[in-house]
Amino acid sequence: MIGMIGAGQLARMSLPAATALDLDLRLLAISGEDGAAKVWPRVAFGNHDDRNAVREFARTCDIVTFDHELVPPELVRELDAHHTVRPGPKALLAAQDKLHQRALFTDLDLPVPNWIAAADIDRAVTFASQTGWPVALKAPRGTYDGRGVAIVANPAELQRVWSDMSDGRALLIEEAVQLDREIAVLVARSPSGQQATWPVIDTLQRDGILVELAAPSQAAPALRDEATLLAQQIAAALDLVGVMAVEMFIAGGRLWINEIAVRPHNSGHWTIEGAVTSQFEQHLRAVADLPLGSTEMTSDSAVTANLLGPADGSNPATRLADTLAITGVHVHLYGKTPRPGRKLGHVTACGTDLSEVRQRARKAIAVLQGDATNQGIDT
Amino acid sequence: MIGMIGAGQLARMSLPAATALDLDLRLLAISGEDGAAKVWPRVAFGNHDDRNAVREFARTCDIVTFDHELVPPELVRELDAHHTVRPGPKALLAAQDKLHQRALFTDLDLPVPNWIAAADIDRAVTFASQTGWPVALKAPRGTYDGRGVAIVANPAELQRVWSDMSDGRALLIEEAVQLDREIAVLVARSPSGQQATWPVIDTLQRDGILVELAAPSQAAPALRDEATLLAQQIAAALDLVGVMAVEMFIAGGRLWINEIAVRPHNSGHWTIEGAVTSQFEQHLRAVADLPLGSTEMTSDSAVTANLLGPADGSNPATRLADTLAITGVHVHLYGKTPRPGRKLGHVTACGTDLSEVRQRARKAIAVLQGDATNQGIDT
Repeated sequence: MIGMIGAGQLARMSLPAATALDLDLRLLAISGEDGAAKVWPRVAFGNHDDRNAVREFARTCDIVTFDHELVPPELVRELDAHHTVRPGPKALLAAQDKLHQRALFTDLDLPVPNWIAAADIDRAVTFASQTGWPVALKAPRGTYDGRGVAIVANPAELQRVWSDMSDGRALLIEEAVQLDREIAVLVARSPSGQQATWPVIDTLQRDGILVELAAPSQAAPALRDEATLLAQQIAAALDLVGVMAVEMFIAGGRLWINEIAVRPHNSGHWTIEGAVTSQFEQHLRAVADLPLGSTEMTSDSAVTANLLGPADGSNPATRLADTLAITGVHVHLYGKTPRPGRKLGHVTACGTDLSEVRQRARKAIAVLQGDATNQGIDT
Repeated sequence: MIGMIGAGQLARMSLPAATALDLDLRLLAISGEDGAAKVWPRVAFGNHDDRNAVREFARTCDIVTFDHELVPPELVRELDAHHTVRPGPKALLAAQDKLHQRALFTDLDLPVPNWIAAADIDRAVTFASQTGWPVALKAPRGTYDGRGVAIVANPAELQRVWSDMSDGRALLIEEAVQLDREIAVLVARSPSGQQATWPVIDTLQRDGILVELAAPSQAAPALRDEATLLAQQIAAALDLVGVMAVEMFIAGGRLWINEIAVRPHNSGHWTIEGAVTSQFEQHLRAVADLPLGSTEMTSDSAVTANLLGPADGSNPATRLADTLAITGVHVHLYGKTPRPGRKLGHVTACGTDLSEVRQRARKAIAVLQGDATNQGIDT
């Protein structure tokens, strides 16, 4: 029995693969309103940071895995001491803590922007003065979708955001590289060390939120190859078991590692329809110690666009019929209560011509968001 | 809320689409051991021929649909009088009763083999003497996977099977056409009359059980076009709402309609990976009155091979790892207790070269069945 801690949309999108392979999967959900808990019968309830709930849940599982990286480090280590935890602490803790991650990658001689752990504003300002403004401030833990990250252009701006972000802890301060392109590499690794890497993709972020991704990346082939090797090197170094997404920058013709997620990731949603094996099936295969599947694309191009809650608070599900009238878009709704800006789902389009495929995906999102006049996302 | 009566593998394979589109689906299962009831939380229990159970279930639904055709005709009519039933009685009753179906198709001037309803052996023998032996005997109702169908070559053979099959009812007796090829056409129709038809496929039957199917059919293009038109004509004539499979024979260079199923069907399993829209998503779209999706193939060729329970009673799931080691096969297990000959799952392979794709699918089935020496099914 595989136990997955967390029952959000990543768990939800894992269920078709668990069903097809008839894997015995159980979820630990916070509530019956969690996206996956609404559509799966084998659900236990408890918070991922409630030691007793997590312990009790793990006791019933052969293998423990996750749909997020929020289980506290000491609890991850405790679980690992008594259970088969996939991915294990090495990978999870690296993903959880950006300072730890930067230190680890620096030790591995991987390309990361210049960085320091700054315990106070003075240290941060000194670093920025040497490296050059702007710099990026990042909270080491609990950041997602742009929260906990700030780009500051001068000491006054730095001062303004410091106390909110730091909360008494050291912050990661790093050189804000001038991006040419953002890419992501999705890699899976099994307990035996088998690796499978999907084609590198381009990502489009807005306000720190991934809004769109396109496969394959249009970056130079040599950079894509290098990115693939980097991701594989990280997977091996972390003893990864499962799926990992590595987000990278291309700046000045070079690669820079931004951050990792050691689970299925938004940047891999295109694999559901666009690759022979989806990231969700692959993650389950890896944690169940089954052979990994083909990561080949099923078409020349695939574009996934995220559905964010419309500003007017309306429910995109009410516009499902109009969206499905667009030929060749795969709609995934996560069963979440709409809130402006909240990730409520995504659509994927596949085809031969990347720009046509992108327009199709964007049109579907525009319709879902009730924005009939805006048929695209500004790039 | 869509209520589906029946919770077998067809319902089970409908769940990913219900989840992705966030459709509110509820199942009526016989027991918690039903394939779909194991992997879905919103399940009511009751038998499909238990009038009170079905009534009670329908009362909670906006739309009633089915994963089989076993609800008794009078109960279908009663449901239809009080609820939105999709497909409706016209389509369901035609699919349920082979004699009714033959009469209907004859009225519509559709190509069916010569047939009669024979109330007794003498009538059947007289028909066969005129038409020529062998003839096919078919029980009008409750036939599936070769049960309730017999081909007899002479009066003695006919006599031998009659009483078992007839059970006092008239039987359908028809000319046993000499098959060149068996094909199937899958069509979907929405309440507004929108139709969507997938490419015609070839089916391979053994002992009356579908063991393999290949898309697209290698039949002559003109015959495929004619088959498509026939299926569309039937869909319109039956006021179909949902998915319908029409199984046809090609004999003597002509098409003959064999039988229909007014629900997702085994011959459409390839559409999960092999078509832009799967038959399961399409059925739900149709019954929910959403626009139908593209039926285009996602690759040049797709082959689905059925997994039948091995003769030794062993469980193919124990050989899942070896199967997944074959690159590019999609495994679907139905969560059923293994029994020799029982349909336990299927595999689908997609690719460019039909014969390579077929070998890949067959190899996966051979491994699942524990038959390492037999890498294929004799054709």
